[in-house]
Amino acid sequence: MSTTWKSRYALRTKELKSSAIRELLKITQNPEVISFAGGLPAPDVFPIARFQEACRRVLELNGHQALQYGASEGYEPLREMIARHIARYGIKAKAENVLITSGSQQALDLIGKLLINPGDRVLVEAPTYLGALQAFSVYGAQYVSVPSDDDGLRTEELEEPLRSGPKFMYVLPNFQNPGGTTLSEGRRHQLVLLADKYGIPIIEDDPYGQLRYEGEHLPPLVVIDRENLRGDGGYSIGNVIYLSTFSKTLAPGLRLGWIVAPTDVITKLVQLKQGTDLHTSTFVQVIAYEVAKDNFLDEHVKLIRKVYRDRRDVMLEALKKYFPPDVTWTHPQGGLFLWVTLPEGMDCNKLFQAALKENVAFVPGDCFYAGNGDTKEGCRHLRLNFSYGQPEQIREGIRRLSQAVKQQKHELHVVHA
Amino acid sequence: MSTTWKSRYALRTKELKSSAIRELLKITQNPEVISFAGGLPAPDVFPIARFQEACRRVLELNGHQALQYGASEGYEPLREMIARHIARYGIKAKAENVLITSGSQQALDLIGKLLINPGDRVLVEAPTYLGALQAFSVYGAQYVSVPSDDDGLRTEELEEPLRSGPKFMYVLPNFQNPGGTTLSEGRRHQLVLLADKYGIPIIEDDPYGQLRYEGEHLPPLVVIDRENLRGDGGYSIGNVIYLSTFSKTLAPGLRLGWIVAPTDVITKLVQLKQGTDLHTSTFVQVIAYEVAKDNFLDEHVKLIRKVYRDRRDVMLEALKKYFPPDVTWTHPQGGLFLWVTLPEGMDCNKLFQAALKENVAFVPGDCFYAGNGDTKEGCRHLRLNFSYGQPEQIREGIRRLSQAVKQQKHELHVVHA
Repeated sequence: MSTTWKSRYALRTKELKSSAIRELLKITQNPEVISFAGGLPAPDVFPIARFQEACRRVLELNGHQALQYGASEGYEPLREMIARHIARYGIKAKAENVLITSGSQQALDLIGKLLINPGDRVLVEAPTYLGALQAFSVYGAQYVSVPSDDDGLRTEELEEPLRSGPKFMYVLPNFQNPGGTTLSEGRRHQLVLLADKYGIPIIEDDPYGQLRYEGEHLPPLVVIDRENLRGDGGYSIGNVIYLSTFSKTLAPGLRLGWIVAPTDVITKLVQLKQGTDLHTSTFVQVIAYEVAKDNFLDEHVKLIRKVYRDRRDVMLEALKKYFPPDVTWTHPQGGLFLWVTLPEGMDCNKLFQAALKENVAFVPGDCFYAGNGDTKEGCRHLRLNFSYGQPEQIREGIRRLSQAVKQQKHELHVVHA
Repeated sequence: MSTTWKSRYALRTKELKSSAIRELLKITQNPEVISFAGGLPAPDVFPIARFQEACRRVLELNGHQALQYGASEGYEPLREMIARHIARYGIKAKAENVLITSGSQQALDLIGKLLINPGDRVLVEAPTYLGALQAFSVYGAQYVSVPSDDDGLRTEELEEPLRSGPKFMYVLPNFQNPGGTTLSEGRRHQLVLLADKYGIPIIEDDPYGQLRYEGEHLPPLVVIDRENLRGDGGYSIGNVIYLSTFSKTLAPGLRLGWIVAPTDVITKLVQLKQGTDLHTSTFVQVIAYEVAKDNFLDEHVKLIRKVYRDRRDVMLEALKKYFPPDVTWTHPQGGLFLWVTLPEGMDCNKLFQAALKENVAFVPGDCFYAGNGDTKEGCRHLRLNFSYGQPEQIREGIRRLSQAVKQQKHELHVVHA
């Protein structure tokens, strides 16, 4: 009797399909294609020399520890460094509040594992980060979507969804993926107050917070929650779990992220992490610590900001120069992405096919919707990444994309005429 | 309204408790304690110079790729190397049959995610690897345990449990953790035939297969399954998923393992892996490839075998010299562990407390039972690791442990007298 593996798969894998982005990335491996599809940092800003020096030192002085099993919580000096680092943004946490994860994708997986029972509702922005939907769906999450605009999630539409009793809400306040938008300060306060009123925890995902190119830093939700609602009681209480990563500041190939949470939540997450992958690579953690230490990371982030700000400006200028006036886009104050809105009637997936013929790629907007009847809205959008390409590639890519847009508009006109 | 996090935890985390081993390891961090508790490779065999050279070369020639996002399946040259490598043991697989995981603990987690619905039964050996129980339990697994002896799982007791319809069976045929036993060739054939008869898939976990110190290599279950039952049809069909790791041959701090499976299973696992942690650290994969290539790993494994064989022999001799004659132990042909059986009436947990007073530690045997009334049997056992300590530490540790054993025997005698 031969086993059909398919007949053995768990129910949770039923809806599983390979993410559209992943399949896209394969298409765009053709070197002729200029891709705005990935969320890749620019490899030319990776601090290679610093990594070389770190590897040399770590293996010479600390090789036996760096190559051995480690604690599930993470490498202690790295946890302490992260606690010190986030203190500058007002997040008062100790090392014991920090769990090192294998990229912040794993943080999302562990949070899904910890909190979601099949059928639980999760409140998300529309649009939201596709990877979070993937991580939560496997645990049986259903979604309640709240629309967003240029100032982020529309908190004035939040109360009713909160009343429906979601298990938690998941938000990206800074330079959102895919929207490129930033949640305004007023809305941050409103969001935290409403979450508290209805007793709904917040998962604050902040991978890009340090990559601000203009405007003032805004307080994280975790800080507002503590200062306004809980007094200065440290991090033992709180309604917010905060996530971030080294993927956009040091290098994504490390797969290093972290979770900041009250200690009892960390304890539970550590137990889950142990069964999931024992611990994150000791070697990678020790190297990352050695690279980042002595304020190197701060200096390095300044360089990244400069490079990415220039690229964002190049893309904004090219969009203005080439695109028809009825196409609009967000003006991100930071991060890696901007979000384009097509005129009514146009379809991002048809545009995607046309764009591929012009050798340019993007991610169709409907990928970023949890799918409660708002997928149609998603079809009017595209996500463009501006961090990866060189300025001249960005200009040429936008020019090509504008050709595809004009052609699609023309076809639409012919059909409707 | 302040959120109680506890009230939000998913049902699957209800039974979650920190593993006994993990707590033990904390106690044994006291440098006075000689610990046979961990499963740690000896750091003195880590090939540090080779790692230094690999880091230097990779960052010089391939730094941009090594630090960037990568494919969820893993680094292609590493997948190909693994496919070539396992071919020598008769496992005919292509790179497309190999998924790189963040340690083989993640392989267990992904398999649980793929296959287990809450309430599904998983057939395991008694005793079995604690980390597998942790990984599967979170997905709601129930267990059916089959006893084992010096020749591994007792296949003559397998048919009835198989008839009860477990979702899959999980076995460690080589130098089992914790038993140190090896499944005999006859039983391997019987196991594969029975699994086929009842259509029950096999998860074959083989972290130690290359660390054989005596006797002849035995065919993996995956090879027997294919050769005997499916003809030479390559790896597209098959009843066995095979797992292994670099943790015991290169270094556990890398967190690098792999799954070998039919392509449709790999495709599904890749989708799950993407939502779990996107992919395993590119940096670690590229470095591991660079270290292992040009047959370095084969040569290195010869060194490890020699060092660990010596340590095993030291432990076996010390046990014989110091332990009372009514205590018995397994004679492992490879791997990292041996398994001690105490005389009836003795309790490994009481012994553990006594041993700590003598500054020596081990893992109490009851940790390794899935807990279907066989936990009491577990209390007569201890797992001892012989790979980590230096020979003189092993001798002294066994001497101390024998003191604790004699003392416990004496107390038992006094109580019963």
